[in-house]
Amino acid sequence: MQVYEAPLRDMKFVLHELHNDDGFGNLEALAEFTPDLTDAILEEAAKVAQEVLLPLNRGGDAEGCILENGVVRTPTGFKEAYAMFRDGGWCALASDPQWGGQGLPESVNKMTEEMICAANVSFSLYPGLTHGGTTAIEGHASDELKQRFLPKMVSGEWSGTMCLTESHCGTDLGLLRTRAVPQDDGSYKLTGSKIFISAGEHDLTENIIHLVLARMPDAPAGVKGISLFLVPKYLPKDDGSVGPANGVSVSAIEHKMGLKASATCQLNFDDSVGWLVGKPHKGMEAMFTMMNTERVSVGVQGLGVGEAAYQSAVYYAKDRLQGRSLSGVKNPGGPADPIIVHPDVRRMLMTMRAYNEGCRAITAWVSRALDAEKHATDPEARQRAEDFVALMTPVVKALFTDLGFESANLAVQVYGGHGYIAESGVEQYVRDARIAMIYEGTNGIQALDLVGRKLPAHMGRYLRSFFHPVSTFIEANKADADLGKMVEGLEKAFGALQLSTATIAERGMRDPEEAAAAATDYTRLLGLVAMGYCFAKAAFVAQTALKGGTDEADFYKAKLATARFFFDRILPQATSAFLAIKSGKASMMALEAAAF
Amino acid sequence: MQVYEAPLRDMKFVLHELHNDDGFGNLEALAEFTPDLTDAILEEAAKVAQEVLLPLNRGGDAEGCILENGVVRTPTGFKEAYAMFRDGGWCALASDPQWGGQGLPESVNKMTEEMICAANVSFSLYPGLTHGGTTAIEGHASDELKQRFLPKMVSGEWSGTMCLTESHCGTDLGLLRTRAVPQDDGSYKLTGSKIFISAGEHDLTENIIHLVLARMPDAPAGVKGISLFLVPKYLPKDDGSVGPANGVSVSAIEHKMGLKASATCQLNFDDSVGWLVGKPHKGMEAMFTMMNTERVSVGVQGLGVGEAAYQSAVYYAKDRLQGRSLSGVKNPGGPADPIIVHPDVRRMLMTMRAYNEGCRAITAWVSRALDAEKHATDPEARQRAEDFVALMTPVVKALFTDLGFESANLAVQVYGGHGYIAESGVEQYVRDARIAMIYEGTNGIQALDLVGRKLPAHMGRYLRSFFHPVSTFIEANKADADLGKMVEGLEKAFGALQLSTATIAERGMRDPEEAAAAATDYTRLLGLVAMGYCFAKAAFVAQTALKGGTDEADFYKAKLATARFFFDRILPQATSAFLAIKSGKASMMALEAAAF
Repeated sequence: MQVYEAPLRDMKFVLHELHNDDGFGNLEALAEFTPDLTDAILEEAAKVAQEVLLPLNRGGDAEGCILENGVVRTPTGFKEAYAMFRDGGWCALASDPQWGGQGLPESVNKMTEEMICAANVSFSLYPGLTHGGTTAIEGHASDELKQRFLPKMVSGEWSGTMCLTESHCGTDLGLLRTRAVPQDDGSYKLTGSKIFISAGEHDLTENIIHLVLARMPDAPAGVKGISLFLVPKYLPKDDGSVGPANGVSVSAIEHKMGLKASATCQLNFDDSVGWLVGKPHKGMEAMFTMMNTERVSVGVQGLGVGEAAYQSAVYYAKDRLQGRSLSGVKNPGGPADPIIVHPDVRRMLMTMRAYNEGCRAITAWVSRALDAEKHATDPEARQRAEDFVALMTPVVKALFTDLGFESANLAVQVYGGHGYIAESGVEQYVRDARIAMIYEGTNGIQALDLVGRKLPAHMGRYLRSFFHPVSTFIEANKADADLGKMVEGLEKAFGALQLSTATIAERGMRDPEEAAAAATDYTRLLGLVAMGYCFAKAAFVAQTALKGGTDEADFYKAKLATARFFFDRILPQATSAFLAIKSGKASMMALEAAAF
Repeated sequence: MQVYEAPLRDMKFVLHELHNDDGFGNLEALAEFTPDLTDAILEEAAKVAQEVLLPLNRGGDAEGCILENGVVRTPTGFKEAYAMFRDGGWCALASDPQWGGQGLPESVNKMTEEMICAANVSFSLYPGLTHGGTTAIEGHASDELKQRFLPKMVSGEWSGTMCLTESHCGTDLGLLRTRAVPQDDGSYKLTGSKIFISAGEHDLTENIIHLVLARMPDAPAGVKGISLFLVPKYLPKDDGSVGPANGVSVSAIEHKMGLKASATCQLNFDDSVGWLVGKPHKGMEAMFTMMNTERVSVGVQGLGVGEAAYQSAVYYAKDRLQGRSLSGVKNPGGPADPIIVHPDVRRMLMTMRAYNEGCRAITAWVSRALDAEKHATDPEARQRAEDFVALMTPVVKALFTDLGFESANLAVQVYGGHGYIAESGVEQYVRDARIAMIYEGTNGIQALDLVGRKLPAHMGRYLRSFFHPVSTFIEANKADADLGKMVEGLEKAFGALQLSTATIAERGMRDPEEAAAAATDYTRLLGLVAMGYCFAKAAFVAQTALKGGTDEADFYKAKLATARFFFDRILPQATSAFLAIKSGKASMMALEAAAF
């Protein structure tokens, strides 16, 4: 059974209690968003997620999207839900007020994203992609394009897409073929085919604004010849209303493993009118603006599904009666004990719980940095925030989506045979979560981004934004009698991370394949240390609260217990990642391709 | 794209070269099955898998089974394929010649099972369940029942099922409610409902023989009051032909995550005539006879799907052009290099390869023991073989199905976005592989069986059948200049396993929850050591062959490379498993159920 109640208490914990000393300072520009106000927003968001979006999740999966006569019909209820969502102002929480957004801090926005994804990840893509699009337009488009498109997109009246992939090129966009021919009036005409376009066509909005990567006739080969264009489904009239169709057609929607209520389209552009966004041949730069925003959001998708899977598993583990506890009957009135009494079921539940709480704590930290890179007054703090965001974006994307998928699978395992049946709703989480490890750059690409771009950038400066707070915390707390064992675990994993960093830097200088061979394990190792740091800090906060006296002792005790579980059972993965990194590329690359 | 070619060379390697010194001796009773003969059988099986079953796999998934008017229709082509399979004598390779079987060694039979599962795991369940049924009947039924049912089942004319689960009880069969009322003629009348019955109803055979767990009126409560009954769909006439219907009806088939071409049925028994198999109230014993056979086979399912996923990923990795190799252009004539050049893609392919080769080597070892427990002339060898089978059955089931699922997911990851689309066929491997971690006892239950039953049995005697060859091998080879590093890795992991065993024994004595809390990690650890032992031995054999001169140098070199990769990249997981075990139950069990 799909069960979800937004984990508001934990969200408030990571927002208001955990990262106060993160070094980004008070962000005066966001002072109006007091804890009281943000908590009220989170509570409202929880209602939308739980009451509007969650009830459509199972049916959306079963029904899927349907393409008929060139029009995509979303599943029953999606149109009404989207209208309610849009009218409630949820489309553009974090957007600039200049375009009608509410200018909410990212730290709050990401928590609402988690809720929306937990309740209905397919639904989340319709407003989600729009948000990526507005970011690219805001960052790179002309004022005229901004005036014309941003207000409608920010309000959610029009939606957006990112049109990158073609059938022969995904990761390697340098190969793309869609052409953009300049016209006398400064516009372009685009022709080509794109695949895997989320929300490429649907019935939720009156217009869809495509951001399309294409090549001009004089473009240099490869990624240096790619430009970004804004191509609306319908050309807007001067009064802002929707005008004639623009030669964009949907030739098919994909039959996918999951995410069935999200329309994944093959789009044809046939002499479609578009306008350049950013500079000619600098499309990759503009694209990365939206891609980076999206990457953190895709990570949060993983967390959202992981949380929903966890709660659904807890529900079942308390409800399902099988066997008796090894430590004595717990449910003497019933024919058996609920399966939550069994250690191996606990192991699964605690693992999911630790993943979710750890990822949520990182989310709050990274989104504090997202806010600080915009609003910090101290230039050094702003720089540190930028560095930290750059470093952590691939980690958040890869780690959270890997763990979200793992949680979804653990939920199925808790349900046993019943979890394999569609009726239970939990196998949907597995299918829905699987894509997040792939899109917006596969997790392997995230790892290469981390190791190949982020580590060496500015002589390793990005990494300092992470290493510094971690080592400071370890030094300050390793003598703490209660936290000691956790800090010791953190210190050991952090040592392995430092050593791995040096190894990769040294070997990678000689041979870039050495860095690439270490990338995935290194990304996991860094992610585990980040989680470990957050859990050790959380334990510190919890312990302080408990010592000081609190009427929320249960919450803080549970936080401590989950932190201990993390150090006992999850962080040891750091050791195997370290050993794998150390082994180098030799055995990985030994076989000739023909030997496979 | 679903690609599969049976790995015959590796099968011959694990059958004929790897385990010659396994201590079970020459099995004279199987002397007629010379390598030449078994290889010829494997080659024929490969043809059936590749040419008959593989082509039906994708369509079977898309079409699924259909229930109409109480009759289940299998997907297009299944009926013809089954007829060909049955007429070819493939239903009963390993069955006793007394009942029309071919008496093939299990070591060969399991390799054919791997092929069948790789090509079409849904199909494999129809003959697979029959085999479990015949084992129970052979072991426990009266001569009259054997005479009446075994020949038809062994030939595949009739198929079988295992009817255990009811909606409120799966793992905890003590709760089951199906009743069996004795009749004057010595038969019983069964009434009740069963769920999740694989092959419970279909159109492949003229009769279906259900083996049903039920409770007699005078039965004691719990598992000690369960008996096993044989209940045919149609009552056979005296001449062996099919007679009147027997009150068994199918009320629904499940809509599942995968395995869609296998009919998973809800069956109602309504005063259905059945006969007791084994002694009254001793149904669990008889059921475990078929369950244990099935558990090894379910493990092999995981291996089969893992191998198909691996080959499909290799196909794509050689075909798909994206990006350029970091060590210089490899495909100068093309627009990009095939993705197999990229280290992170290699990491995924080598991981799958190592999993498959490691599991296949264990399969050959365990099935040699299955043969030896039947045919070894030396009673000590027979005892060792029995011990080894008892020990390894839960390991094979849990390890292989976990790794098969992981391989399926890695294949999707190699395909990227294309892997998430049904068209590619690889996401089907993920959905099909997922169930094997659940059915025939969840992998958590396997782990409890290992730690709670198999370790303590006979004062730890079972474990000696495994520890002895491993420690002997380590002692004999640790000084070997070429193998040294691998043996060192094995020795370290083996040390961790020994220490974990002692820890679990010691703590588990005081508190059984301590053993249960360690179970899953211990199972993985033991599995990794078993794989490590097989890889170190394989490296030894390969090295010896290369030193002696061979015209198959490529095969042996690849074997060495895969072994090195295993020790570099996979075996390090043993360390994290060890640390997790060491941490004990405290943090896992700390939270009150209400705190979840």
